[in-house]
Amino acid sequence: MELHRHIQITDDGELEIGGCRATRLARDFGTPLHIMDEMTMRSKCSEIKRSLSKHFPRVFVAYASKAFCTLAMCRLVHEEFLGLDVCSGGELYTAIEAGIPPENILFHGNCKTLSEIEMGVRVGVGRFIVDNLDELDLLSEISRRFRRRVHVQIRLNPGVEAHTHHYIQTGLIDSKFGLGITDGQAMKAVERTLASEYLVLEGVHIHIGSQILAVEPYVVATQVVMDFVGDVKEKFGYSLREVNLGGGFGVRYKSTDTPFSLDEYAERVSEVIRESCHIQRLDFPSIMVEPGRYIVGEAGTTLYTVHAIKDIPGVRKYVMVDGGMSENPRVTLYQAEYEAILANRALEEPVVTVTIAGKHCEEGDVLISDVDMPRANPGDLVAVFTTGAYHYSMSGNYNRYPRPAVIFVRAGLADVVVERESYVNLLARDRMPARLMQIGARSSEPHLPAAGNPG
Amino acid sequence: MELHRHIQITDDGELEIGGCRATRLARDFGTPLHIMDEMTMRSKCSEIKRSLSKHFPRVFVAYASKAFCTLAMCRLVHEEFLGLDVCSGGELYTAIEAGIPPENILFHGNCKTLSEIEMGVRVGVGRFIVDNLDELDLLSEISRRFRRRVHVQIRLNPGVEAHTHHYIQTGLIDSKFGLGITDGQAMKAVERTLASEYLVLEGVHIHIGSQILAVEPYVVATQVVMDFVGDVKEKFGYSLREVNLGGGFGVRYKSTDTPFSLDEYAERVSEVIRESCHIQRLDFPSIMVEPGRYIVGEAGTTLYTVHAIKDIPGVRKYVMVDGGMSENPRVTLYQAEYEAILANRALEEPVVTVTIAGKHCEEGDVLISDVDMPRANPGDLVAVFTTGAYHYSMSGNYNRYPRPAVIFVRAGLADVVVERESYVNLLARDRMPARLMQIGARSSEPHLPAAGNPG
Repeated sequence: MELHRHIQITDDGELEIGGCRATRLARDFGTPLHIMDEMTMRSKCSEIKRSLSKHFPRVFVAYASKAFCTLAMCRLVHEEFLGLDVCSGGELYTAIEAGIPPENILFHGNCKTLSEIEMGVRVGVGRFIVDNLDELDLLSEISRRFRRRVHVQIRLNPGVEAHTHHYIQTGLIDSKFGLGITDGQAMKAVERTLASEYLVLEGVHIHIGSQILAVEPYVVATQVVMDFVGDVKEKFGYSLREVNLGGGFGVRYKSTDTPFSLDEYAERVSEVIRESCHIQRLDFPSIMVEPGRYIVGEAGTTLYTVHAIKDIPGVRKYVMVDGGMSENPRVTLYQAEYEAILANRALEEPVVTVTIAGKHCEEGDVLISDVDMPRANPGDLVAVFTTGAYHYSMSGNYNRYPRPAVIFVRAGLADVVVERESYVNLLARDRMPARLMQIGARSSEPHLPAAGNPG
Repeated sequence: MELHRHIQITDDGELEIGGCRATRLARDFGTPLHIMDEMTMRSKCSEIKRSLSKHFPRVFVAYASKAFCTLAMCRLVHEEFLGLDVCSGGELYTAIEAGIPPENILFHGNCKTLSEIEMGVRVGVGRFIVDNLDELDLLSEISRRFRRRVHVQIRLNPGVEAHTHHYIQTGLIDSKFGLGITDGQAMKAVERTLASEYLVLEGVHIHIGSQILAVEPYVVATQVVMDFVGDVKEKFGYSLREVNLGGGFGVRYKSTDTPFSLDEYAERVSEVIRESCHIQRLDFPSIMVEPGRYIVGEAGTTLYTVHAIKDIPGVRKYVMVDGGMSENPRVTLYQAEYEAILANRALEEPVVTVTIAGKHCEEGDVLISDVDMPRANPGDLVAVFTTGAYHYSMSGNYNRYPRPAVIFVRAGLADVVVERESYVNLLARDRMPARLMQIGARSSEPHLPAAGNPG
């Protein structure tokens, strides 16, 4: 197994991330624990900017916060000169609380509510990515009411298929996202935006899917977008200055995954744009991209403690850990596959194929179906890799499990960025209607058969 | 569409639940909103007790709290003379805080942690449902340390297949749950329990799956269990007094679903037990069942507001609502299907087939793929039925959406049992490491290209 570059194994066989030993982190912060390597995230931020700047004259990178959104994370990407892509009032609120200048925020979403739109207009987000005509009309009305100029990108549905899980394919004709080019909806949106008093049409946006491992679909989609930009110029004499190509850049979950390089991406996509601009006599637009998983995915590792082993001879050996589908929903949701090691015995040879099962009351709650490992015992630590994206952000409290802590590690230091949930936290919003308290006493007797069995 | 018996449509075409009009609930509590009909839950509690008591001399019904676990819900089932099945420290904590006598609590889980086991022993839960040998050894040790008698049921893996989604099949040989009968693990657990100083072996437990719509698998599994009870008697001369048959009783999600009646279930299962007892000269055991979904599933309705419509001519018409996969993960997780109506225009004829899409930034975030409805407009209310089980309990904050409020309705009254989450709640455990605050200022300039486009 090939470890991510920031992950070390010490000479005495222990996993070390950001200079912090796994056993120490487990002891200090408990398990399950989400560990984010800060330097990996920072490197990814600078690498993507560097690759893209080589090929695009003007580029703006916005971190897609839905992958992992906390105050500290918003701050980190801001420090690295990235903007932020938010797709809800909650993400926008987090960004603002983290001190992100609203001008650097792109506001997405296929079903923005009235209050979300008002919030976006009030704080003055940099761009509204308008997803449908109802939203456009509402935004136009609210911008007039607030007398605020609102800068708009129109989300197109490019009708391009990316090879990924069908849940996370977003560029098909039959999609809840974006306005169709072929059916004329997108052009209608352009017309209405141009006619609106306070809306400023800046550009167009596409997003073709997630965890994409080939450049080709981007090339195809970019061509579709540039054709649309040309059509807008021709039809309205209006130059769209911005082309937002979205995200979806794949990462390495397993050693066999082979993500494309951003240099290759930038080179091939910029060729398409350059050629289109030449043919259609357009200025080279400002390019935006919105990586989420790319920034945080590989930086994340989740640490679990083994609590029980169940060996079903000839069938399967289960290693049960103290987490599962509540903090990693990607396995049940997308049949996602991961790699893992015993973090406290990382140099030992794998001698047995096991299934890492979670502790939730559900058969499907399995983290990895077949992984080779040394023989694990209760108390051992399991590290699952590439858990930085869509883990904490998609987590819940199924079975009333408190959500894990999240820490940033760097140069031997570990800082909590999300505190572990407590049982008390879980009950914080529970209310007991008075009448249930009043009549509750009538059945305070135990109902179970008297305990004890003489045999 | 056939509505659940507690759901009414008023003469002016409005959905009414527990005597409360949908529009009033939406106005008073906001949307999305989980509405639980209190009398339906209470009726289900008494119906199941009535049906089972007809056929079993001693019966104990424990509500499987994982389906929907809050303080008020624990209290309600307690009032109805049911016990509680918990499968985590968090559910146990909730039950204790709700004032449930610990003797009425059954403690499940395939991977109980040391601290959970200690908690269970300390509060004195009625039964530990022991799931594996590691847990058994730990429990034996802890009970000795605490000098506390602990009453045990051993969870068997009966090797019976129920026809349901493979994630929620739990009775197969290859299962993380239970101890195998065929491989001798279950008998080993019996032996160890009998040998343990403080453990009292009360009985055995099985659970063959969830949302089961046929009695047959229960009949088969019960026979397997009774054979095991006979084997234990023969081998150790020890009578297991309790047989816990678990839950999994299906409910009606769609009009075409046909759950079995509990009378039929009790009749057929009791026949098997009676015959086994006769042949193997056993006393008729105390029977336990653990319904979760059965109690709360049909009682729940979720109310949404429509915010946008997207018509892709000849392809699909999307009706976008203000919720989705964060508060209903069952569609993406199990491809679950639901029925829905326009709650404020419930008497209008359905004239169009639409897809109800959620507002999350994910293509798979769809609530219902094809449902016939009147032509919906922004502001209309959509009610999705049978959302009482595994909705609130499995919900999360993906895209930083605050979780909906949950209310109990009864005779025109509505009580909040879980308050709606706020943006402030979402950030409550976020921490900003000091060093991020210090150097954050260096990039406070906006990075977006200067806004405004002269065209």
